[in-house]
Formats: sequence, C-alpha cells, structure tokens
Amino acid sequence: MVTSPVVNTYPLSSYTFGTKEPKMEKDTSVADRLARMKLNYMKEGMRTSVEAILLVQEHNHPHILLLQIGNTFCKLPGGRLKPGENEIEGLQRKLSSKLGANSPSLQPNWQIGECVAIWWRPNFETIMYPYCPPHITKPKECKKLFVVHLSEREYFAVPKNLKLLAVPLFELYDNVQRYGPVISTIPQQLSRFHFNMMQS
Amino acid sequence: MVTSPVVNTYPLSSYTFGTKEPKMEKDTSVADRLARMKLNYMKEGMRTSVEAILLVQEHNHPHILLLQIGNTFCKLPGGRLKPGENEIEGLQRKLSSKLGANSPSLQPNWQIGECVAIWWRPNFETIMYPYCPPHITKPKECKKLFVVHLSEREYFAVPKNLKLLAVPLFELYDNVQRYGPVISTIPQQLSRFHFNMMQS
Repeated sequence: MVTSPVVNTYPLSSYTFGTKEPKMEKDTSVADRLARMKLNYMKEGMRTSVEAILLVQEHNHPHILLLQIGNTFCKLPGGRLKPGENEIEGLQRKLSSKLGANSPSLQPNWQIGECVAIWWRPNFETIMYPYCPPHITKPKECKKLFVVHLSEREYFAVPKNLKLLAVPLFELYDNVQRYGPVISTIPQQLSRFHFNMMQS
Repeated sequence: MVTSPVVNTYPLSSYTFGTKEPKMEKDTSVADRLARMKLNYMKEGMRTSVEAILLVQEHNHPHILLLQIGNTFCKLPGGRLKPGENEIEGLQRKLSSKLGANSPSLQPNWQIGECVAIWWRPNFETIMYPYCPPHITKPKECKKLFVVHLSEREYFAVPKNLKLLAVPLFELYDNVQRYGPVISTIPQQLSRFHFNMMQS
C-alpha cells in the first residue's frame, strides 16, 4: 500500500499565546499593494512568497492557524522572500517575525515540511492560478505553501492588531467567499496526509 | 530550495487511440448506484476506490485524460478495489480494463506515482469530502487519486460507449459546475509538481 505522509497535530490547548507590538500591513489599499508589487518587480524581478500551514487539533479534527486582520480578511502567516533567499530560511524568518516572541530563546521550532501548493500571479492583479497560464512567460509572483510541523509545546506572540484563529478544515472547505481561492482549497491539498491526533 | 516532484508530459499526438467493446456503467441511476454501494458495504465493509490522473501536454500546458459518458458526465479512469487488493495493482488492473488493449502485450506501462488526494464518503450519498468529517466513525468509501506516469508512446483502447478527452488544467480550474468537486480541484493538487513538457 502507498503510505501517506504524517502530521502530528497537538491540541490547541497545548500552545500558549501572548501578544507583541502591532505589525501593520505595508499597504492600505489593493491599488497601493499592486503598485508596490510593480515597483519591486522592476527592481528585483518575480516575487517569491512563502506561507505556512500550521496545524493543531480540536475535537479530533485538524484546524489551521490563520491571522485575521480587521473583522473579515484572513491570511496565512508568511511573506515575501528577499532576492536569492532560501525558501526554508525565509519562511522561518517570516514566521518568527509574524508569530515569534521578541526573545530569540522563545522562538518556536519551525520545522518546515512538505510543499503542498504553488500559486502563480500572471499580472499585476489580484487573481492567482494554481498553474502558470499558457502564454505567460513572465509571471509576477510565485507563492508556495508549506506544511509546518509544530512541536508539542510552543509560545506564539501575536501582533496586537491581528487575531490568531484556529479554523477547522470543514469550515475552510468549499468556502471561497469567506477565505478566497488559496485558503479554501487547503483541505483538498492536505487530504493525502494522515493526521496523528495527539493528546496532551 | 525545496524541489518539486517531476512529471514528464508528452504531446497528445505521441499516443495512439483505438476502440474496444463497450464498458457499460453498472448502474443506470444514482439511486441504483447508492443501493448497490449499500449492499456491497454490508458484505465487504468500506469501499476503497482508486483513480488515475493521466497527463499529456498540448500547447505547452498540461492536460488530463477524462472518460466522458454521454454528453456531459466526465470521470477519471479507475474503480473499486477488491477486498484486500493492493492499491497499485488494483489501479493497474482497472486502467487495463478501462483503457488497455485486449492483448496483454499491448498494455500500457502503468507507472503509478504520487497519491495527490484522498476523498471520503461519510454516508450512502453522493457528497464526498477531502477529510473524514468529525463524528464519522464508519465512512462508506475512501477514494484515492494517483498521478500515473505515462511513457512516451502508448496505445489506448477506448470502450466504444465512452469518449476519451484531453482537458487542460485551465478548463478544470474553478469549474465545479461542469466537473464536480473532485476533478475541478485537481489543478490545485497538481500545483506542487513540475511538468517537464517533452517534445516528440
């Protein structure tokens, strides 16, 4: 038989959550965001961004940690790589910036695991595709999603302007209206994994 | 850097297609299908089915081979395992039955590759989920999708009552109305792969 890759998921209650200084969004509008993207593209070429799927469990069902900005918009923790930066190290740097305590000794052990999805932005627009569309020779962004394997105990420091939510797979599934095309298909991308529901 | 798994995709024109005797659907209605599923469940327990994602390329873009029944309904080649049957051997058996020539010497070289998705049927109903829903202790079916790596030249024998279509990823993406929830999210599940577009 073919064996599934395994993810150990610990109860949400086995983690500790604190707060830290706010991390403001760099742009205040979608138009600003696309304009900054265009400027960076002219300087540095295609943007590569990396995002983390952090898993916990509640009631024997996998949940994903999402950062909520304001009352509606949710995103995965992660961000843009520096030109030439290694994907694994870049994602660890971004996770520490978004969710790690300020003290280096309290940083979670970010074990970057499987790449589960790659999304492409063909133009300076919001739409992305899970393939590089035919005839697009110069995509503007490539976004990679990784499973991050959490240890049993960790301390997360959440920026004061954000909320950290644990959202069950069944809430994400088929919910593109609320979570967008990237996050709402994470359940399908994780379906090949076996989740070890750990008790604490 | 994290390396993507690779799929070599050859042009559709490098394959040859013939026909063979019809393979009729075992059931003539959804109600019949669910009734037969229930009967088999009582005899043999949870059904495991295996389906193949066969990839070719046209115009430098990956296409998936789908079997069309009548004018609208499309499905992946594959089927139900016998109780205790090995997944790889069972999928090879089903592929030969659906798409292989009757002569054993003309059988394609079915190289079963990565499992990309697992879907669960919680009840004797048409709806499936990419996870086993919480509180479901006895799912009725588990369906696994595998990438099958095709060689450069093959002969496929298509049952006379079916059509074999090569459908581009961009046609499947975000098209749940036409292809259903399982097939329409294959582009997302394949997004982590690198496709080597082979020329023939």
